[in-house]
Amino acid sequence: MIYNFSAGPAVLPKEVLQQAAAEMLDWHGSGMSVMEMSHRGAEFMSILADAQHNLRELLAVPDNYKILFMQGGAIAQNAIVPMNLAGVKTEQPATLDYVCTGSWSVKSIKEAAKYGRVQVVADARNHPSGKFCSIPVPDSWQLSADAAYLHLCTNETIDGVEYHFVPRVNVPIVADMSSSILSRQINVADYGVIYGGAQKNIGPAGLTIVIVREDLLGHALPCCPSAFNWKTVADNDSMFNTPPTYAIYIAGLVFQWIKRQGGVAALEKINIAKAALLYDYIDGSTLYENRIQKDCRSRMNVPFFLRDESLNAAFLSAAKVLGLLQLKGHSSVGGMRASIYNAMPIEGVQALVNFMHEFQQQHSR
Amino acid sequence: MIYNFSAGPAVLPKEVLQQAAAEMLDWHGSGMSVMEMSHRGAEFMSILADAQHNLRELLAVPDNYKILFMQGGAIAQNAIVPMNLAGVKTEQPATLDYVCTGSWSVKSIKEAAKYGRVQVVADARNHPSGKFCSIPVPDSWQLSADAAYLHLCTNETIDGVEYHFVPRVNVPIVADMSSSILSRQINVADYGVIYGGAQKNIGPAGLTIVIVREDLLGHALPCCPSAFNWKTVADNDSMFNTPPTYAIYIAGLVFQWIKRQGGVAALEKINIAKAALLYDYIDGSTLYENRIQKDCRSRMNVPFFLRDESLNAAFLSAAKVLGLLQLKGHSSVGGMRASIYNAMPIEGVQALVNFMHEFQQQHSR
Repeated sequence: MIYNFSAGPAVLPKEVLQQAAAEMLDWHGSGMSVMEMSHRGAEFMSILADAQHNLRELLAVPDNYKILFMQGGAIAQNAIVPMNLAGVKTEQPATLDYVCTGSWSVKSIKEAAKYGRVQVVADARNHPSGKFCSIPVPDSWQLSADAAYLHLCTNETIDGVEYHFVPRVNVPIVADMSSSILSRQINVADYGVIYGGAQKNIGPAGLTIVIVREDLLGHALPCCPSAFNWKTVADNDSMFNTPPTYAIYIAGLVFQWIKRQGGVAALEKINIAKAALLYDYIDGSTLYENRIQKDCRSRMNVPFFLRDESLNAAFLSAAKVLGLLQLKGHSSVGGMRASIYNAMPIEGVQALVNFMHEFQQQHSR
Repeated sequence: MIYNFSAGPAVLPKEVLQQAAAEMLDWHGSGMSVMEMSHRGAEFMSILADAQHNLRELLAVPDNYKILFMQGGAIAQNAIVPMNLAGVKTEQPATLDYVCTGSWSVKSIKEAAKYGRVQVVADARNHPSGKFCSIPVPDSWQLSADAAYLHLCTNETIDGVEYHFVPRVNVPIVADMSSSILSRQINVADYGVIYGGAQKNIGPAGLTIVIVREDLLGHALPCCPSAFNWKTVADNDSMFNTPPTYAIYIAGLVFQWIKRQGGVAALEKINIAKAALLYDYIDGSTLYENRIQKDCRSRMNVPFFLRDESLNAAFLSAAKVLGLLQLKGHSSVGGMRASIYNAMPIEGVQALVNFMHEFQQQHSR
């Protein structure tokens, strides 16, 4: 038995992979693989419509929001967001507000500075530790008077910091939800734009989801490539360029799987239980520690350290022997990281905790 | 038996799909699907390196060219090309030379105009027919004195027009080879940049191949998103953002398949034979016609018309009954189109010709 704790691309539901394997050479009697279908044919059009419909249902996306299937991941969106929204303001360069809570925020901020005047309204590194381990309280944020939007990353995959609240501001919130989308219930109407790479809770790398409120379409800067102009993508129902058809098909299977699990609410309950199991064990242990402030710990990505870091290599290799894979922390943070996305069953988290405990016992003599 | 004549996404080698299905849940004993692997793990790194190595070998890509795996398809590259190359010239806006030979050229030209001063050096619609059915002779091209590059589309997927020569010019040639790459031998050194969407001869939609001469890196305009800056992509070995890992894996399997067929030279011979079989039949028929000038007919995409267009619907439905799929021509051109990429065996072309002949017999009484 293998449990894959990769931060992304990440574990997918086994049922989804089994169905994909079974349908690989002949989708529903069409005689074709989904990879071989014209994106404008009836077969793929039905796959796309089904995926879009189910995602809309799972997140209760209001009618005045468009769901776009794009390419380039969150890193491309770091440019695509300001290219689409900086034009909302007549004053140029527009002011773009960003909250900085981790490595992904840093990347977003750096890229946005090419397209507008970026205001970092709060930087979590101002914490006494100098590290990303908290979310500055919204009352302290230095919001601009007239920003085009406020950008935040709802879950910092690398640092393990997650928003468990939605700030109340007067401008559209643009949220990078790459690693938290579909892991918890959200109110889409709280946001102007939600975007994320698919490769955590949705499907294969190479697909990007964008959910955008209609009034935010049509403001792109002249330099925005047509393929990345949200309005062009929306007007063409994600078919302005050939979409990543197979990735959309897999995402569609994942959406069906989520529905069979009882939807996002049911998964959220399990995700809360999984995270509690792991954090509680870590907090009660003598060998391990998580350094993130308790009220903003991520349910999806749990970074932790061995108090004796000389044991890191032994920890990783013993874990691998047991089939507990990809636990090494991101190079910029160090230590370990267990990513426990939707497709990670609680049995996997329990297996990890059991192993961690055994390893602690062995090394505390 | 099914033969799929889709223009793209298009037929893939059956062996590739069989291997992908067999490895879907467990790649080489790793316990993971390729879709579930961290792109920075040893497993996927080996898949990427292998794919890159085999593509370099298949096209004999010289050492001073980088191979990039990107996202967004040729339509995104229509913007990404000028964003990366308009900065080669100090004079701004730079002059960008384009040859217009079909629908894809038209799209490229329209997009490039956002980033430079586009000079259309020749427009094939100046043909007496007013249609795209030829390639203006290079002696007639109105080349700019000081262009950053000359762009051409080596094979017009929609119109069925293909270059069977390489023009000699003094600036780097940028070639959209989406629908001809790997179908024929080329001398990569004739080009500054070669790019293409993967979904014809390479693999699934969502992967874009860029082959770029090193001296053309590092000239991007300030507005170019980092994820689409060729130098950034090259410096990070296509890992600046998470690459479309599964699509790269499938492309790698296709490259291995091409090697087993004897490489590009061997496929080119078969492709010549396939195209000759179909064009010769059409030219000798009474019911069908191809309207493209003989010296620039595409080997990959064969558009044709029924001289009695009232038979179109009957032709398509009778073809479908026999398993001859996706033969309808592009809406902008009408009629029929048979795309006969590398993965289409000559038996498929023979089956099409047999059917066309039978259909002609039935309707010529």
